[in-house]
Amino acid sequence: MNRFRDEDALVKEIARHFLPSRGQQLRLGIGDDAALWQPKPGVAGVLTSDWFLEGSHFLREKHPPDSVGWKCLARAASDIAAMGGTPRCFLLNLALPENATGKWLNSFLGGLRRAARSLDCLLAGGDTTRSERILISVTVIGEIAEGREVLRSGADVGDLLYVSGTLGEAEHGLRVLRKSRGKVNHKNGALRKHLYPEPRVELGCWLAEQKLATAMMDVSDGLSSDLARLCAASGVGALIDPGRLPLPGGIAVNSAQQLALHGGDDYELLFAVSSRNAARIPAMFRKLRLTQIGEITKSGGLRIVERDGVTKALHAAGWDPFRNKI
Amino acid sequence: MNRFRDEDALVKEIARHFLPSRGQQLRLGIGDDAALWQPKPGVAGVLTSDWFLEGSHFLREKHPPDSVGWKCLARAASDIAAMGGTPRCFLLNLALPENATGKWLNSFLGGLRRAARSLDCLLAGGDTTRSERILISVTVIGEIAEGREVLRSGADVGDLLYVSGTLGEAEHGLRVLRKSRGKVNHKNGALRKHLYPEPRVELGCWLAEQKLATAMMDVSDGLSSDLARLCAASGVGALIDPGRLPLPGGIAVNSAQQLALHGGDDYELLFAVSSRNAARIPAMFRKLRLTQIGEITKSGGLRIVERDGVTKALHAAGWDPFRNKI
Repeated sequence: MNRFRDEDALVKEIARHFLPSRGQQLRLGIGDDAALWQPKPGVAGVLTSDWFLEGSHFLREKHPPDSVGWKCLARAASDIAAMGGTPRCFLLNLALPENATGKWLNSFLGGLRRAARSLDCLLAGGDTTRSERILISVTVIGEIAEGREVLRSGADVGDLLYVSGTLGEAEHGLRVLRKSRGKVNHKNGALRKHLYPEPRVELGCWLAEQKLATAMMDVSDGLSSDLARLCAASGVGALIDPGRLPLPGGIAVNSAQQLALHGGDDYELLFAVSSRNAARIPAMFRKLRLTQIGEITKSGGLRIVERDGVTKALHAAGWDPFRNKI
Repeated sequence: MNRFRDEDALVKEIARHFLPSRGQQLRLGIGDDAALWQPKPGVAGVLTSDWFLEGSHFLREKHPPDSVGWKCLARAASDIAAMGGTPRCFLLNLALPENATGKWLNSFLGGLRRAARSLDCLLAGGDTTRSERILISVTVIGEIAEGREVLRSGADVGDLLYVSGTLGEAEHGLRVLRKSRGKVNHKNGALRKHLYPEPRVELGCWLAEQKLATAMMDVSDGLSSDLARLCAASGVGALIDPGRLPLPGGIAVNSAQQLALHGGDDYELLFAVSSRNAARIPAMFRKLRLTQIGEITKSGGLRIVERDGVTKALHAAGWDPFRNKI
């Protein structure tokens, strides 16, 4: 194989080289949002690592450096939240060109520090070096009580599908950013969501503690791509009702639906709940909206309801680094 | 500050932004080879993360891909060994250009897998994306029994200084590699040490378990640079006897001494031992030579013995990503 179709194919290739990817302490390896490492019974460490690269994940001339700092940690912490874990500390690998070590770095570290404080997550170490472009790799270590982790693979036929917050707003924010010239208007909600996403740690913890979610992941590449991964891991299908999608305000409905289905970078939680527990899912969880957007069906891929109850296939068309560039 | 003198200055700048860098669970943050994370009393997780970048740490046209795979894990695991810990699992962040996804990737993963097996260290996850050059960031998570970790900061005046193996051999191997054309001669010991370093995990564990080392780190950037860091952390100085340095064979002594003092990439352990425990340090530890190379002195920097017992200052001149390129 000389080229990969997409990221999943590359991950599979790597996983194939490392079978088995579990051990006595490594209770969960490749294939979910984060890995589970359990030094002792009772508590497991939750480990995740994410790239954040100039030109691929952010644009130096468009993204304020404090947003780069905030977001590189927030998006990695979102993977911990997606397991039901709590972020505890992180490692920062940072490679910088010389012209990014002054003002840029200072503002970057300011944004990173604010994210770290907001998440109560301590910088534990890392590595620094020089490079032609800004390269960031962030590892977050979290923890979760034994047996409370929520994987992608637990969804069952008949479960109801929920998402937190709104979908598509961050992608809309990226479009606003692309068109912006000079100073960023921080009052624009969509732009703020794109630049300073807030990982849903409290919600993830609560769903895990209460054992309410049968499967969970964060929506980082777009609903159509991420839900396809959840369904593949669970061996099920899903039916989405587009009329239920929590759309951001201020955008025409048709356009907003497309953003909600395929837009990336939302870092909301997508989770499945057994129908007998549906009454326990509130409409609001600490100021965060929770919306039922569909249900888990028998295997057969993702489908979406059209007019008059007719359904059609929903193809994964979210963000993929092997197909897209920011 | 618009440019950093060296890597240490940049690390300090980052640390300044994140004070305090310790917490209840994060027993050791920025400033040592790895961080200590303790989910429960009894055992601590040991966390480290390292860059391995094309053009900075390896040359695509010179380094065999299986060496890149082996070395990116081995050098990160060496930081775990330098604390006295045992590597348990790792996260791989890999960004590749399209022309490195075929043969190159396969061979890279083969080398990485061999290192993982040799270290009994499981791949736990990570992130992949596309990039113009090959970018690698590896995080290793290890563990150590409570209170047995060996830091850089524990050396005391009068302690004896030891290193494992030989010093300068990997740097010599790099020179051989630079001159090589086409196929690499794997029978060349120096070249092998540069391409496939072996982290000294068993030795580090033993020194930690036996409480023999008062301070320890791995020699990755070169003795003069790394020893300066150990001394700074411990608030002491050191005196090196160049006649005692364990030199690689087959190189003129003068040249070999320079390599041993300043050459990088050896991944040997440098450790201090109280003089009352010196008799417990064997000349050989499981086929690995241990050599006393000097002693810890009062503050006053690094010094080196010249002829007739006269000493002169030894300046840090090892590898630094902000000064050197491979």
